[in-house]
Amino acid sequence: MTPIVPTVPSHQQTEMHPQRWGDPARAAALPESARGLVELAFGLDERPAVEAVTLPASGLDDALLDALRDRLGAEHVHTDDATRRLRTRGKSTPDLLRARAGDLADAPDAVVRPGTHDEVAAVLAWAVEHHVAVVPFGGGTSVVGGLVARRDGYAGLVSLDLVRMKRLLAVDHVSMTATLEPGLRGPEAEALLAAEGLTLGHFPQSFEHATIGGFAATRSSGQSSAGYGRFDALVVGLRVATPRGDWVLGSSPANAAGPDLRQLVLGSEGAFGVITEVTVRVRRLPAVKVYEGWRWPSFDAGADAMRTLAQAGVLPTVLRLSDEHETAINLAKPDAIGSDSAPGCLMITGYEGDAAAVEARRAAVTAVLEGLGGVGLGTEPGQAWAHGRFDAPYLRDSMLDVGVLVETMETATWWSNRARLYADVRAALAASLGDGALVLCHVSHVYETGCSLYFTVAAKAGTDALAQWAAAKAAASDAMVAAGATITHHHAVGTDHRPWLTAEIGELGGSVLRAVKADLDPTGVLNPGVLVP
Amino acid sequence: MTPIVPTVPSHQQTEMHPQRWGDPARAAALPESARGLVELAFGLDERPAVEAVTLPASGLDDALLDALRDRLGAEHVHTDDATRRLRTRGKSTPDLLRARAGDLADAPDAVVRPGTHDEVAAVLAWAVEHHVAVVPFGGGTSVVGGLVARRDGYAGLVSLDLVRMKRLLAVDHVSMTATLEPGLRGPEAEALLAAEGLTLGHFPQSFEHATIGGFAATRSSGQSSAGYGRFDALVVGLRVATPRGDWVLGSSPANAAGPDLRQLVLGSEGAFGVITEVTVRVRRLPAVKVYEGWRWPSFDAGADAMRTLAQAGVLPTVLRLSDEHETAINLAKPDAIGSDSAPGCLMITGYEGDAAAVEARRAAVTAVLEGLGGVGLGTEPGQAWAHGRFDAPYLRDSMLDVGVLVETMETATWWSNRARLYADVRAALAASLGDGALVLCHVSHVYETGCSLYFTVAAKAGTDALAQWAAAKAAASDAMVAAGATITHHHAVGTDHRPWLTAEIGELGGSVLRAVKADLDPTGVLNPGVLVP
Repeated sequence: MTPIVPTVPSHQQTEMHPQRWGDPARAAALPESARGLVELAFGLDERPAVEAVTLPASGLDDALLDALRDRLGAEHVHTDDATRRLRTRGKSTPDLLRARAGDLADAPDAVVRPGTHDEVAAVLAWAVEHHVAVVPFGGGTSVVGGLVARRDGYAGLVSLDLVRMKRLLAVDHVSMTATLEPGLRGPEAEALLAAEGLTLGHFPQSFEHATIGGFAATRSSGQSSAGYGRFDALVVGLRVATPRGDWVLGSSPANAAGPDLRQLVLGSEGAFGVITEVTVRVRRLPAVKVYEGWRWPSFDAGADAMRTLAQAGVLPTVLRLSDEHETAINLAKPDAIGSDSAPGCLMITGYEGDAAAVEARRAAVTAVLEGLGGVGLGTEPGQAWAHGRFDAPYLRDSMLDVGVLVETMETATWWSNRARLYADVRAALAASLGDGALVLCHVSHVYETGCSLYFTVAAKAGTDALAQWAAAKAAASDAMVAAGATITHHHAVGTDHRPWLTAEIGELGGSVLRAVKADLDPTGVLNPGVLVP
Repeated sequence: MTPIVPTVPSHQQTEMHPQRWGDPARAAALPESARGLVELAFGLDERPAVEAVTLPASGLDDALLDALRDRLGAEHVHTDDATRRLRTRGKSTPDLLRARAGDLADAPDAVVRPGTHDEVAAVLAWAVEHHVAVVPFGGGTSVVGGLVARRDGYAGLVSLDLVRMKRLLAVDHVSMTATLEPGLRGPEAEALLAAEGLTLGHFPQSFEHATIGGFAATRSSGQSSAGYGRFDALVVGLRVATPRGDWVLGSSPANAAGPDLRQLVLGSEGAFGVITEVTVRVRRLPAVKVYEGWRWPSFDAGADAMRTLAQAGVLPTVLRLSDEHETAINLAKPDAIGSDSAPGCLMITGYEGDAAAVEARRAAVTAVLEGLGGVGLGTEPGQAWAHGRFDAPYLRDSMLDVGVLVETMETATWWSNRARLYADVRAALAASLGDGALVLCHVSHVYETGCSLYFTVAAKAGTDALAQWAAAKAAASDAMVAAGATITHHHAVGTDHRPWLTAEIGELGGSVLRAVKADLDPTGVLNPGVLVP
């Protein structure tokens, strides 16, 4: 079939704010309704971002870039400050703190925009020839330093921007698969699939800006993972441009033809190659979406209910549970902060599908939850969650504006280890950040054998907020490793988690990653310093 | 908890017949009821196995083995002919043809039986020191030449027999996981788990003899895969003894801490290390098991019904569909051979779980199948299938006794490619084996995006049956590759599929496997010549 392309040309798409999350038009001051609450908890310490910024000059001279201009077209090789600024780092709180302070030391020397797999391959060949570091760039939403590659020893560093690769290459309505290009953002991919009556069903918090290639490269997991599966479970085929050539994987849904090498590309974070095509399992576009709230007397009681659902194979499409602290904040009025009269724990259940399937699944889940003592709250809390499901990063910016450090981190473990992990990470964060800090948590991804824990932290920013957060992050990461849990359930490794990766996958795991990297990227131009220990 | 060990000491367990499948006590001549049918189809050409056999002398001298005897105990290092014969090759038809002809050229020089992870590591250290090839041995049920390693350039070859490693090391009833040692055969693992009220639910045709370690190393898939998942989907943790040391993987059900390296060990066929512990997801022991039959007018109609079930997420525990030819043979009376009045296609649906879950699932599946025109045949065909589900390899031996070549092969593809793959492989086998050959097929594993195809072939054995089968196998494998399908859905690569592996995973895939092998097994002592292209 003829590939289908989004109607909005890529160069007209909204770029994210260079110092904040998301659409610049949606940047806003802290809402008045929250201002009093924040003042009470942390005080208000206005810290506006530095407006004037100076980028390091591009370290790549024109002669070197001319070969790329010949190949891609001069209009797809950018060295201007405005474009380079938009490809500097990702969107972690440390990234934002640096950007707000006017620190653009990590700006790429150039931004190159190949339009096809072959052009990506040409960029890699050029990078190998001239020993230039290459950072693949999708939506720029990394929160783990995945876009901050090492540059020492390289002739320069380019951002390989996939923004032009936005085609839906193929749809197989019989096998229910679709082949997508990596530069499609979440809404663009969903729009193209919706025209075919299909959905991918992958809705992480970064959905509005993150891309298909990034989802694959980082093993993303979405808010509807209970129903649709995490992104790595959706992928059945991949095409990768590597410095050693083209690599196509995916002969069948599953097989025994040796190790599943797709699983080696998924999570490879641009260090082994650039993903240029992703074939995913798709589902029919749901006719009905219903989101509901449930109240549980405690986080333990709610988590046990989630475990029961997962192990019974009776899962809604969306399943989330906030702990007492997150529940209180979500319902907060000023006097609720620090109150002991916590309103229990809020669970969100969501159902998507045709009407009959939704009703059948909803009835089955409802029977289990009522049997376990859950109190149904109707659709209002569910609709409220669905309405704001992608908004939290905007609030983070508003909090940073008034001197409150906000960041998230996530982990996963077995059900039997959940309570320990929760207690240990909370304790580590509280000890590092001090008594005034808020530590909130929710479970947003469940499996038969375990679940994720997603922490949100807010604390009054000190004079060196970067060091303050680095210490808290290290304390929490140490606690995760000590508890035998993963250092990241769905944010990836990047540079921020790399110090802990060997503790998780072993010295031999690190050695294997280095061996694969050396095989596929022998001169080490791809995302140096990212992922591989 | 205290590890649990099976009640039958390992040295008293029944060994498989050295020239046939399975328990020697169950070896039998072709049943009289089938004899007439086989004579009609192929003629009877009695070909008894050669009784007297001579093994090559062990090429490893005692001095070399003494270090192992010191470490493992002399009683666990065997060089006698009887033991070595039982560890010679696997159970493919070519393996059996060679064994029946008295060809034991591939016998190992010694059989060594470590009892713990540390003893496995000691064997590997010894093998590296003396450059001895090591073939990990579980149940010996390989049908792809997975136990026939290369020995040129090595001081000798030992079979690393895991028969002593049969403990259930841990059970986590909250997370629903169990940690098993690799030498446990299917029934032994199920018995240990049943005492805990649990089941693994993994029942491949080799179940009675194959082991936990082998299931993991080969990405096995069982007859109940629709309900329990294929073995690689059951594994959440692994421990591996490699020549470079101990490797433990599995921090959480799923995560984003780089590529999932568990998926690199699964399917590694003993070429990267020896799997010494496997942590698997388990389920509650089912209270009810019901198996039923359904009739479809054609293979296409039945396969479309399977696809509908898989894509609706309404799957029974067991789901199989025989094509017209296999259905006819299964129902065969002598006059049915070659008849045009095929009785359609037989589907088996099975349900396992508690009574309420079974009834709910059965009702949902029944509604879909009846809506698509399936004709319910009640439980009799289902019970007949369940009764004989592990018996086909015994029949193969009886057929070989009368000069009929019988073998199986399997593949998988996307739903939209199923009909083409089926036609092409059938045509390739028919063209290679000639008009008198029978080619039967069934679908036994389904996914949302595709399914497996399992072929059984019977033909009159020529004077060089090995060459005859090699040609047919090559023709079928070429057809699978040409159709873009996998060379093996659940039998693994071994040595037999290795010539086609690069076509499936690409030159870069082969290169990556070599790089990982070189990293973990730098001197190449582990299963040389198996898997890695």
